[in-house]
Amino acid sequence: MSLTSTPWNALKTWRQRLTVPQFTVVTGALVIAVGTVLLASPLCSTDDVGLWQALFTVTSAITVTGLSIIDVSRDLTPLGQLTLAGLIITGGLGLMAITTFLQGFVQGNSGLRQRLDKGRALDEFGVGGIGPTFNSILITGFCVMGIGTVVLYAFGFTDIANPLERFWASLFHCISAYNNAGFGLWGDNLVRYRDNPVVNGVIASMIVVGGIGWRVINDLWTNRARLQGLRRLSLHTRLVLRSTALLIVFGALGLMFTEQFAAGGVIENLQWWQDIQVTLFQSISARTAGFNTVPLSIKTFSDAGLLLLIVLMFIGASPGGTGGGIKTTTFATLMGATRSTLQGREEVVIHRRQIPDTVVLRAVGVVMASAIFVILMALLLGIGPTTSGEPTRTTFNFLEKLFTCMSAFGTVGLDLGVTAQLNRWGQLVLMVGMFVGRLGILLLLSAIYGSRPQPRVGYPREEIYI
Amino acid sequence: MSLTSTPWNALKTWRQRLTVPQFTVVTGALVIAVGTVLLASPLCSTDDVGLWQALFTVTSAITVTGLSIIDVSRDLTPLGQLTLAGLIITGGLGLMAITTFLQGFVQGNSGLRQRLDKGRALDEFGVGGIGPTFNSILITGFCVMGIGTVVLYAFGFTDIANPLERFWASLFHCISAYNNAGFGLWGDNLVRYRDNPVVNGVIASMIVVGGIGWRVINDLWTNRARLQGLRRLSLHTRLVLRSTALLIVFGALGLMFTEQFAAGGVIENLQWWQDIQVTLFQSISARTAGFNTVPLSIKTFSDAGLLLLIVLMFIGASPGGTGGGIKTTTFATLMGATRSTLQGREEVVIHRRQIPDTVVLRAVGVVMASAIFVILMALLLGIGPTTSGEPTRTTFNFLEKLFTCMSAFGTVGLDLGVTAQLNRWGQLVLMVGMFVGRLGILLLLSAIYGSRPQPRVGYPREEIYI
Ligand SMILES: [K+]
Ligand SMILES: [K+]
Repeated sequence: MSLTSTPWNALKTWRQRLTVPQFTVVTGALVIAVGTVLLASPLCSTDDVGLWQALFTVTSAITVTGLSIIDVSRDLTPLGQLTLAGLIITGGLGLMAITTFLQGFVQGNSGLRQRLDKGRALDEFGVGGIGPTFNSILITGFCVMGIGTVVLYAFGFTDIANPLERFWASLFHCISAYNNAGFGLWGDNLVRYRDNPVVNGVIASMIVVGGIGWRVINDLWTNRARLQGLRRLSLHTRLVLRSTALLIVFGALGLMFTEQFAAGGVIENLQWWQDIQVTLFQSISARTAGFNTVPLSIKTFSDAGLLLLIVLMFIGASPGGTGGGIKTTTFATLMGATRSTLQGREEVVIHRRQIPDTVVLRAVGVVMASAIFVILMALLLGIGPTTSGEPTRTTFNFLEKLFTCMSAFGTVGLDLGVTAQLNRWGQLVLMVGMFVGRLGILLLLSAIYGSRPQPRVGYPREEIYI
Repeated sequence: MSLTSTPWNALKTWRQRLTVPQFTVVTGALVIAVGTVLLASPLCSTDDVGLWQALFTVTSAITVTGLSIIDVSRDLTPLGQLTLAGLIITGGLGLMAITTFLQGFVQGNSGLRQRLDKGRALDEFGVGGIGPTFNSILITGFCVMGIGTVVLYAFGFTDIANPLERFWASLFHCISAYNNAGFGLWGDNLVRYRDNPVVNGVIASMIVVGGIGWRVINDLWTNRARLQGLRRLSLHTRLVLRSTALLIVFGALGLMFTEQFAAGGVIENLQWWQDIQVTLFQSISARTAGFNTVPLSIKTFSDAGLLLLIVLMFIGASPGGTGGGIKTTTFATLMGATRSTLQGREEVVIHRRQIPDTVVLRAVGVVMASAIFVILMALLLGIGPTTSGEPTRTTFNFLEKLFTCMSAFGTVGLDLGVTAQLNRWGQLVLMVGMFVGRLGILLLLSAIYGSRPQPRVGYPREEIYI
């Protein structure tokens, strides 16, 4: 297409011809490359952090996962920690903006320029086009994080004497929570604040607000004057709010149930109010944030409890939020389809609205492809070459492997103590999992195949027995 | 409806008003009750077999599962073994007939009589109505089992000197294989014939032919003269044949891959041809039959291999066959839906035919409900009260529990050495799992809710983001 021959113009033309998914993938890879070099430099980190450790940390930060093979407070300089926070905001709010943008389209095949023009022209975001939407996403994010930081500073981290240190801890954890990143400044994550209701409450609120997505926040804000009539809200908003609430409550109840029977487990010898606080926090955190207020390992949780956490990690947060996973609405669609089938219906009905069959189909595709991908990851984790001297423990049981891979794919960051013990092959598998899981299999595939025109052949229908 | 008041007539009227699913459930429960009393009597078994052991064995036989807490050759008399074979045929061919019958209807709500009349009148089975179909199912079954018995007697179990014993072993194993029951006469199942190609071949063929279902066999037989043109076959037949072949091959390749890395595993120190024979047989057998030619335990298989077996057990055989699981066509439908989604299509296309959305919806419902049911089973297995003296080993890891529950739900019968070690609570969970898994969640629910008219309310469509 381009008639000019300078490399710079060629690059510019190439960039303009990228689709949004392709643009996202290319940008992500570029940020990781630049971030790695920056973080590995002595300005940002101690000698313990080589290129490999920096690459893993940057990938984990930009995908807001939180899996880590370094100790953030010890191995990173203040500038390094600031860089990390910047990467987390870029990854969290950046993808929030991109997915919100893509939600406006049914198909994802046109070029970026075209899209941007279309978005501006059609005002399909309801708040005056793309620019105002992006601004609103940023303003919402910084307001929420700001309020959280103030509350944490004043009432939360009161045990930290140094004001600057206390402020940085408050700000960093709010950034990490709102973007569902799960990075902490301390080696034990938030275990030291297990019984602090302010820290629990603020972090959990940040996670939930960041996880439900800008469209839902915007819908709630627009209708704030007449919220008694919930019917004004869109089906999407109601579905996100209800499934988020149900998942939090049932996750906590489930953990209370499974961990009752685990001798030596995390809620042994706790008061009932501690039980509730710990399980609620863990239930909220497992769906993508990845903070923990109790030590996580195969010893401190029962098999059943770990399985429940795996399911919560798989489901993840809501679409257009800062979290990962297959998304709450995908899960709700499949549950709706299941209920419809069991009732003998032939269409999916949720909240008295019929869900289009194409949505159900997409949900099936996302879930199956994601499940297959995670299982392949777990299979691959075990078979890589062992570089001498690297691994201190080479055999993990199947549940530990599956948990770790799900944690990476769902960009959760909960860790049973496996990640740092893996050899480089295993850590590579996790990095690929984080990248694929963050972008989502659909976005990734449309980045690869997006430009190819889809053949539209009609085939005759034929029944099969199932 | 009934104007007469004698209990017998009331019972008869009640029976006639049952739907087919209700009739199936009631008949199944009755056969289990009668069979238990019969098998527990001294005519059929030694003193070691009480009512509980008899109940478990009969449930396992009528659901063609093959999980066992007794030693068939030692604890059952010849009459007991004959009863077991009878129960297996009843369960296998019986449900084959019923599901083949139900496949003729889209909805399952009319009464049994009505159905039978309709079936006779409409000749919807293409071979002259219900009577001829049932006859054909029986004749096909006995022909296949007969041929198998002759081959096994003449070339297979040649190491058994006593002719009567050899005949009974041949007949019993053919019945067990064609009906996908997986019961063996010996404590080690078929481990002693691991390297015998005739035994491997005959049993594997019986399993596959029994598993693909009567409709497929009938379609192949009808078109036998012009099989070069595969397009004459129905979509259902082609789909069943292709997914069966693919699952067998990929299952075997997968096992070869995962077990390569398992030190001390079952294919260590084997020749390449033994590798192929063992993995092929195990891949075929895992999708519902449940025979094993190698010792099965958490020690002899890798975690990844056991996971693969769990997936194969979950998928199971084909609809209208003697096997269980969610069915090959259900799996193929979901894979088709996944492929369509990843390609950006809005309809499911398999073999150049469009699959109706209602079929996709049913597939989603079956898979989700089944997966949730099996996971609940695995959670419940661990928490029952321990009756003193019963269990010799009370803690199993998560993978062992999930494997055992999947084996029961898929009516497979592969056992890691868990079943006999469980307490009665755990064995009860397995029995319920076998019963539900054999009938299928859809059939069971339509037995419960079948008579209730389904409200047909139209709701407006609304999009959600996933
Ligand atoms: K995270
Ligand atoms: K079986």
